[in-house]
Amino acid sequence: VQDIAQRPAAAAKLATIRRWDQDDPLRAFRDRFELPPGKVYLDGNSLGALSTDARERLDHVTRAEWGQSLIESWNTHDWFGAPERIGAKLARLLGAQPDEVIVCDTTSINLFKLIRTALALRPDRAVILSEPGNFPTDLYVIEGAIAGDGARELRLETPERLIDAIDSRTALVLLTHVHYKTAAMHDVHAIMKRAHEHGALVLWDLSHSAGAVELDLDAARADMAVGCGYKYLNGGPGAPAFLYLHRMHHNAASSPLCGWMGHARPFDFTDHYEPAAGMRRYLCGTPSALSLAPLEASIEMLLAAGMQRLAAKSRTLTQLFIDLVADSATLAGLRLATPADPARRGSHVSYAHAEGFAIMSALIAQGVIGDFRAPDILRFGFTPLYTRYEDVWTAVRKLEHVIATDDWKRPEFARRCSVT
Amino acid sequence: VQDIAQRPAAAAKLATIRRWDQDDPLRAFRDRFELPPGKVYLDGNSLGALSTDARERLDHVTRAEWGQSLIESWNTHDWFGAPERIGAKLARLLGAQPDEVIVCDTTSINLFKLIRTALALRPDRAVILSEPGNFPTDLYVIEGAIAGDGARELRLETPERLIDAIDSRTALVLLTHVHYKTAAMHDVHAIMKRAHEHGALVLWDLSHSAGAVELDLDAARADMAVGCGYKYLNGGPGAPAFLYLHRMHHNAASSPLCGWMGHARPFDFTDHYEPAAGMRRYLCGTPSALSLAPLEASIEMLLAAGMQRLAAKSRTLTQLFIDLVADSATLAGLRLATPADPARRGSHVSYAHAEGFAIMSALIAQGVIGDFRAPDILRFGFTPLYTRYEDVWTAVRKLEHVIATDDWKRPEFARRCSVT
Repeated sequence: VQDIAQRPAAAAKLATIRRWDQDDPLRAFRDRFELPPGKVYLDGNSLGALSTDARERLDHVTRAEWGQSLIESWNTHDWFGAPERIGAKLARLLGAQPDEVIVCDTTSINLFKLIRTALALRPDRAVILSEPGNFPTDLYVIEGAIAGDGARELRLETPERLIDAIDSRTALVLLTHVHYKTAAMHDVHAIMKRAHEHGALVLWDLSHSAGAVELDLDAARADMAVGCGYKYLNGGPGAPAFLYLHRMHHNAASSPLCGWMGHARPFDFTDHYEPAAGMRRYLCGTPSALSLAPLEASIEMLLAAGMQRLAAKSRTLTQLFIDLVADSATLAGLRLATPADPARRGSHVSYAHAEGFAIMSALIAQGVIGDFRAPDILRFGFTPLYTRYEDVWTAVRKLEHVIATDDWKRPEFARRCSVT
Repeated sequence: VQDIAQRPAAAAKLATIRRWDQDDPLRAFRDRFELPPGKVYLDGNSLGALSTDARERLDHVTRAEWGQSLIESWNTHDWFGAPERIGAKLARLLGAQPDEVIVCDTTSINLFKLIRTALALRPDRAVILSEPGNFPTDLYVIEGAIAGDGARELRLETPERLIDAIDSRTALVLLTHVHYKTAAMHDVHAIMKRAHEHGALVLWDLSHSAGAVELDLDAARADMAVGCGYKYLNGGPGAPAFLYLHRMHHNAASSPLCGWMGHARPFDFTDHYEPAAGMRRYLCGTPSALSLAPLEASIEMLLAAGMQRLAAKSRTLTQLFIDLVADSATLAGLRLATPADPARRGSHVSYAHAEGFAIMSALIAQGVIGDFRAPDILRFGFTPLYTRYEDVWTAVRKLEHVIATDDWKRPEFARRCSVT
């Protein structure tokens, strides 16, 4: 397994970098992605790429299952079991037990379910703690979950002050494990330890973690987690999200979104709700068999690659990018906004630059696809399953070109448009 | 346009029925569905069939948009606008304004959003009114939406008593327009009139109505509606659902599920939620571009067919089935559980029979796909876009065979399995 031992002195030479790609144990996975030719795609942290595996699984579910087996597919192709079956596979990437993860709905909706579960488990505690600048939906959903409840409040503390702010008034700490802008990674064990000392629950948003960094939710006795299926999990645009709940909390509370698929016996069609045991009570409406299909195939690829190898390559990719940028005098105006310590960051690298939007626009026009986050962050995501070391080298060379030639000052790059 | 003028005397002759198919103005749509050969599919009220239009749209979004344009598709292929764009198309099938409908999430989740919206609009009223035996998720979601709120109660009244039960204590009436078991259709105008006289809001579940019967939500001044995308709308298993809110209620309340896609400016990434204007505030998480694709293509087919022609054919199909069964002495043991008046029913026909499960199982083994609803209901759904009159004839002849030969008494048909 390659790791961060390789340093810029070697990295600066393209021949060396190409040898890394040849020696990469994950190399064969690249060929299973249908990437646009001639482009370097560094935005898998926002939307993961299409693999042949995912496309063929979706084709099969569409043509053979929906098309030919129709309604019978709920049983014969186990569409009913898909949320748990895929959850059990995903659990292996998260360091969780198979029955602690279920795949359904969106990250935002799953946040709502678990925030309300946490408040039910801590009825006498007033405070939900998070950090300013957390991914917006995490904060917005807290606002919605406590709206009209005068006994609860959302309190935002900076990462430096956050751990000490956890106390006996804290019902829930809600943090994004890897920050969507900076890639800074929270110390799960340290926060869990403090939280457990004070009886607080912790809900982790793993949207920028799952499939990119090693996780061990059970060992950390993490209470709850959610995350999205369309970033490093490569499940497709708007893929179903997931939620995790540690066994110690199973059946202790139920979801406020109690739809029929979360019922103990949905096909009895009774008038009163009775939650299913375990994670199925966190289902709500009818699962999307179509959008679950590519996600399942994609998770199987990640399992075949192995989380340890994926995480190691992620660290090498991000370190190579950081080192190549650091070696370039042309790029001295970019300020690294990501932790320099690979153990403290996720799988993307961010730089601050006042003209970040125009620079990223010009770079995209050169075929290197990263993204921009207001007000000044350029983001580059590195997906170990399909990003090559040579892609990193190419991206830095094109970034140098855009800066060195003042290409980014062309007026067509000044206009804002939104990217997710 | 054919309508219910055709009666069993003519219908009993297969040659006549075949002529109806030849003269059917919707005949060409049948060829655009990829139905399993040799089967008669009468369960489009549970899962609509796959059309070539839907499959090709999904293929395009998968291969070209996700695969090649990747993250840029949010803008260049307007994935962001899809929930409103598809909503505007669907609005024409519902008799709504284009800006009153949005497509997202599931029926259950959309019920939660609108129930809570209704309670916010009627803060001083205690009662949510529905009917016993309503589709379970409607009742379950009400329970979840008022859990812990001592000031609210769910009250169930039979259809006969329901209209008189609407009074000044009623915050919301929540009804499924076409009943999932019996196909009985509520009188929207009568209920809206009574509700408006007493200041109550009404939320319609249109899951068994949209694409099957004519609706005129705006003319009825219907307050709210939800419905599912995978029945007569043919959007695919677990397709996104929809919600409708009359303009008179726009911006008066917001969704309790306030995720980032419902924010006024999601890409400002602010710490505080500010709801978008109009229907976008009812979005929550990231839309599923993949599962929206086949739904959009399917809705376009329905628009091309025309809601009036679809509804007329629906009435003829259901009447033909009822008449053929009534003409058969062999089928005298089946009790019609659907209104005999075509103006009072949706697009499926149900019969009660104590051995319904085994009879339906045996019929499915004969290639006629209907479904069963506990405890004793056989359901047959007729989708005007792809069901032929001859399919109706074939289904009745096979049903006669199953009963006449006691085929249904074979032991393999006695075992229960769930179908949705």
